[in-house]
Amino acid sequence: MKKIILDCDPGHDDAVALLFAGISESIDLLGVVAVAGNSYVENTVKNALKITEMASINVPVLKGAGKPILREQIVAPNIHGESGLEGVELPEPSKKYEEENYIHFYKRIIEENERNITIVAVGPLTNIGNLFLIHPELKDKISEIVIMGGGIAFGNTTPVAEFNIYADPEAAKIVFDSGVPLTVFGLDVTHQAKINNEEIRKMQEIKSEVVSKMGVLLEFFHKTYFDVFKIVGAPLHDPCAVIYLSDPEIFEYENYYTQIELNGKYTYGQTVVDYWHLSGKVNSKWAVRVNREKFIEILFENLKKYEKR
Amino acid sequence: MKKIILDCDPGHDDAVALLFAGISESIDLLGVVAVAGNSYVENTVKNALKITEMASINVPVLKGAGKPILREQIVAPNIHGESGLEGVELPEPSKKYEEENYIHFYKRIIEENERNITIVAVGPLTNIGNLFLIHPELKDKISEIVIMGGGIAFGNTTPVAEFNIYADPEAAKIVFDSGVPLTVFGLDVTHQAKINNEEIRKMQEIKSEVVSKMGVLLEFFHKTYFDVFKIVGAPLHDPCAVIYLSDPEIFEYENYYTQIELNGKYTYGQTVVDYWHLSGKVNSKWAVRVNREKFIEILFENLKKYEKR
Amino acid sequence: MKKIILDCDPGHDDAVALLFAGISESIDLLGVVAVAGNSYVENTVKNALKITEMASINVPVLKGAGKPILREQIVAPNIHGESGLEGVELPEPSKKYEEENYIHFYKRIIEENERNITIVAVGPLTNIGNLFLIHPELKDKISEIVIMGGGIAFGNTTPVAEFNIYADPEAAKIVFDSGVPLTVFGLDVTHQAKINNEEIRKMQEIKSEVVSKMGVLLEFFHKTYFDVFKIVGAPLHDPCAVIYLSDPEIFEYENYYTQIELNGKYTYGQTVVDYWHLSGKVNSKWAVRVNREKFIEILFENLKKYEKR
Amino acid sequence: MKKIILDCDPGHDDAVALLFAGISESIDLLGVVAVAGNSYVENTVKNALKITEMASINVPVLKGAGKPILREQIVAPNIHGESGLEGVELPEPSKKYEEENYIHFYKRIIEENERNITIVAVGPLTNIGNLFLIHPELKDKISEIVIMGGGIAFGNTTPVAEFNIYADPEAAKIVFDSGVPLTVFGLDVTHQAKINNEEIRKMQEIKSEVVSKMGVLLEFFHKTYFDVFKIVGAPLHDPCAVIYLSDPEIFEYENYYTQIELNGKYTYGQTVVDYWHLSGKVNSKWAVRVNREKFIEILFENLKKYEKR
Repeated sequence: MKKIILDCDPGHDDAVALLFAGISESIDLLGVVAVAGNSYVENTVKNALKITEMASINVPVLKGAGKPILREQIVAPNIHGESGLEGVELPEPSKKYEEENYIHFYKRIIEENERNITIVAVGPLTNIGNLFLIHPELKDKISEIVIMGGGIAFGNTTPVAEFNIYADPEAAKIVFDSGVPLTVFGLDVTHQAKINNEEIRKMQEIKSEVVSKMGVLLEFFHKTYFDVFKIVGAPLHDPCAVIYLSDPEIFEYENYYTQIELNGKYTYGQTVVDYWHLSGKVNSKWAVRVNREKFIEILFENLKKYEKR
Repeated sequence: MKKIILDCDPGHDDAVALLFAGISESIDLLGVVAVAGNSYVENTVKNALKITEMASINVPVLKGAGKPILREQIVAPNIHGESGLEGVELPEPSKKYEEENYIHFYKRIIEENERNITIVAVGPLTNIGNLFLIHPELKDKISEIVIMGGGIAFGNTTPVAEFNIYADPEAAKIVFDSGVPLTVFGLDVTHQAKINNEEIRKMQEIKSEVVSKMGVLLEFFHKTYFDVFKIVGAPLHDPCAVIYLSDPEIFEYENYYTQIELNGKYTYGQTVVDYWHLSGKVNSKWAVRVNREKFIEILFENLKKYEKR
Repeated sequence: MKKIILDCDPGHDDAVALLFAGISESIDLLGVVAVAGNSYVENTVKNALKITEMASINVPVLKGAGKPILREQIVAPNIHGESGLEGVELPEPSKKYEEENYIHFYKRIIEENERNITIVAVGPLTNIGNLFLIHPELKDKISEIVIMGGGIAFGNTTPVAEFNIYADPEAAKIVFDSGVPLTVFGLDVTHQAKINNEEIRKMQEIKSEVVSKMGVLLEFFHKTYFDVFKIVGAPLHDPCAVIYLSDPEIFEYENYYTQIELNGKYTYGQTVVDYWHLSGKVNSKWAVRVNREKFIEILFENLKKYEKR
Repeated sequence: MKKIILDCDPGHDDAVALLFAGISESIDLLGVVAVAGNSYVENTVKNALKITEMASINVPVLKGAGKPILREQIVAPNIHGESGLEGVELPEPSKKYEEENYIHFYKRIIEENERNITIVAVGPLTNIGNLFLIHPELKDKISEIVIMGGGIAFGNTTPVAEFNIYADPEAAKIVFDSGVPLTVFGLDVTHQAKINNEEIRKMQEIKSEVVSKMGVLLEFFHKTYFDVFKIVGAPLHDPCAVIYLSDPEIFEYENYYTQIELNGKYTYGQTVVDYWHLSGKVNSKWAVRVNREKFIEILFENLKKYEKR
């Protein structure tokens, strides 16, 4: 059972990832830290609270960073709506996020679980970038960071930059340069992990209110993705990063050296992946292929467990 | 029959393109202008003279620019050897290149064939960039520029930049911003247009000294490509651009807006292609797929004609 | 007597420089080449024709480049008005500019006067940049380029970039990297070479129509400079570069290594001058101080000669 | 009496600033936070401990950030020697720095002294940048940040960048964009605040071991400054920032809008100061002139108080 902190900005696909992390038998979810990304952090932390409460996931939820390290803030209303989770109304949460500062929380949990803790980061990497700025000594105490972000061959926010990295490239640089083992789920693989309309309908039929509402949410997501990218099928970006923890063998991987472009006029926020291995260096393991059928099967297997909660 | 000027830096694959252009019934080759690229311009112009003379291609050969517009010069000895055409000894040419300045030549030919002239540029775009700087009024008088250069999903000189563009990105920017209709053969398609060892051997058996020597040259090229990129099969980059003129239907195309990155730390020289059509603009037609079998077939059909020269 | 080509974008202070070059006994003015800068090249070439004709300066006037090498074009209506020479009406010229292409003209004159020709460039350096791109071999045949442009401690168009360099930084880079001996009159010295209102009035009293009209023009220039920069006194930027040819001893100089910033977000177009000589290199001689009284005296001495024309 | 935290990287001139802050009746020194800069943080914190102990300054000393936010670390052994304080041997300190994390310390002190606390930052701005990343809410609770760093007309590490800013430009950007009132002592003024050899000798004669040793240190500093910059007289950069607190009237100021260049090839780390007030914005008050005689007089008056400790 892997001990993880989920750093996220729910977000439609984040929500599905959170549900998976909250029920999978392979995952021991020690905390959820929200970050600004798909929407402002006030929204993403509230969304995290809504989902965990509705799904009876008993886990501390923390409010992370509200602004990227250096760049102007961007959010993604064209994909996730203004609230970050548009498409269905979820009940207001009764709980509030923890009082503890997220940096303090990260430090405490990492020290309590030295070399036995995985950070799953499926939003901009601001929180982790900040953590490493203040506590560089913690880098050595983390087993792995699993990232949803970036792309090898293309982006989704600019032609070459993916949203999570583009929203805070300086934070991404800190993380990619950290020396911590990184496993990356970029657009190349998440665009293979698509859920189609029929599967979305099947999800809505699962007898759990929270799961079926997620299904409705994915309908919204499916539609916005098509409107913007003319892609049929909603890529389940963030769930890749958590399903990897339980079933790593459904993905194929390549080891690469990745650098984050901070200076380009058209390429700011690009993950520049040393495709031909010309540098002789490696700092990241990228998932490059997924068995989509297995992926959906594993996802449904786990979401169905909510029927018994 | 298309009137063309071939702007090139032979170069192994350039040499094959030149042979094709010199014999295809669809192509009226009005001039060959060498440019610095795979090697220094003194070498590339000499290589162009050697090939045209050996192949009895009766065409003026001109010496173009020796240095890129702004950047430090780079050449590609790791792929093409020091001479730019390593792997077989070709006889010294008896002719010299034309006295006429290449800018003057371009201007004269374009004005003589107003709106009826295609430039096929398979090296760095320095010559054409310089032409447009001095004679911007000529842009309107060119039918099309066919470019071998760039890539949508990857590069070959840096992870994201292809050699011809990387060798003079500022010239590339001038050309991509020129408004002239552009057809681009980037690495995405040229890496599909590979010739394998068996085909290279068959090429060596064609009963024409120049063609069979080309076959020997491609063996060298095949080997260096494998050594650097671990790719099996030599991509016939430049021949794509000329075979397109006779047989455009063997390729598939997409219209894109392309910008050249001049500021990136890791992305200098990248062709940033608006993959998702988010800009709503178009300045270039990119070939994205090729029927490899047809491609090789057409190539051989034409090279065989040299048996009768 | 120094043989010069004056490359300019009149422009108020350009106009005064042109009058000086046309009458000084130290200067043999072989040609005037207009460039886009203070206004569009159609305007600056017309302004050059107006001034030379009105002042009976018998010299070929050529039309140079209309656009900078790479950047978006900028002009300076806030300082020079829409026409580039606002503030007084000058008669329409009867002559047209030469048919000869400016690159051809430069080449011809430089070769006819090998190592005995000075280029005085008081506008953006586009023409000379283009010349060196097409004819790098001419660099060795030029004695000196005298530049009005740049600044050591400050700019005038951005906080750190001066207009002539900012209007075409890529051309400036080509010129500063050319190896040709450069003498530079930047803002540090030209802001010492100011003409005050009393002197401007005295200039209007000189019994030559063209000179007295220049005086009226300088009134306009004086006013716009005050409006924008809150500076009292109109800096005679461009006349510095020609008065230097006749009276170099009224200036003090420092040798520096100068690089042109092409990548900065806030510093694009800055002349980065190695103030502390840390690089150990030198590529330019900068005038850093001027004896203002002598400067004005020499200017008036020469402008008065127009009374006898 | 102003409550201050001194953020520094001693450093020769830092040491003098620290002595001044420790004895001036206008200053209530609540803490000294070391940062990497002139040397590594292990050295600068040790140097701070040595000086405070030797001078009997009773103040908590904290260890701040060891690495800049994004850039590669640089230090300045050419100016300050390997230890950061070369030129005289100081006794090893008996005390250690505080256990408290510097971010926690800053937060605590700022909250205890809300809107009544001044940060005097005379090294790279890394600590404060990190503080604002984690606790943006503290920005509103600080009265003023007094910075030694940057320059309007020139730099000292590159032609245009000053060491403290160049050592962490990203941190500088965070601070200059923070909205906190900033008073800046850049090279333009600190190069006026020079101490000459005679004065350095007089300082050595002050009957306090720590002060006279500082005098010896300044001899080293005087020499390295001359070796590198050919400047006679050691600029007392950092003391400017503390003497300002007691005697602000000995300086003259200008309000400017300042941006930090993060992208330039030659201008990385430059403080781009809106010299002509073209932006209409202000984010910083720059000292531009100092009465040197008064400055030295005030300095000596205070250092002499150590005779009685």
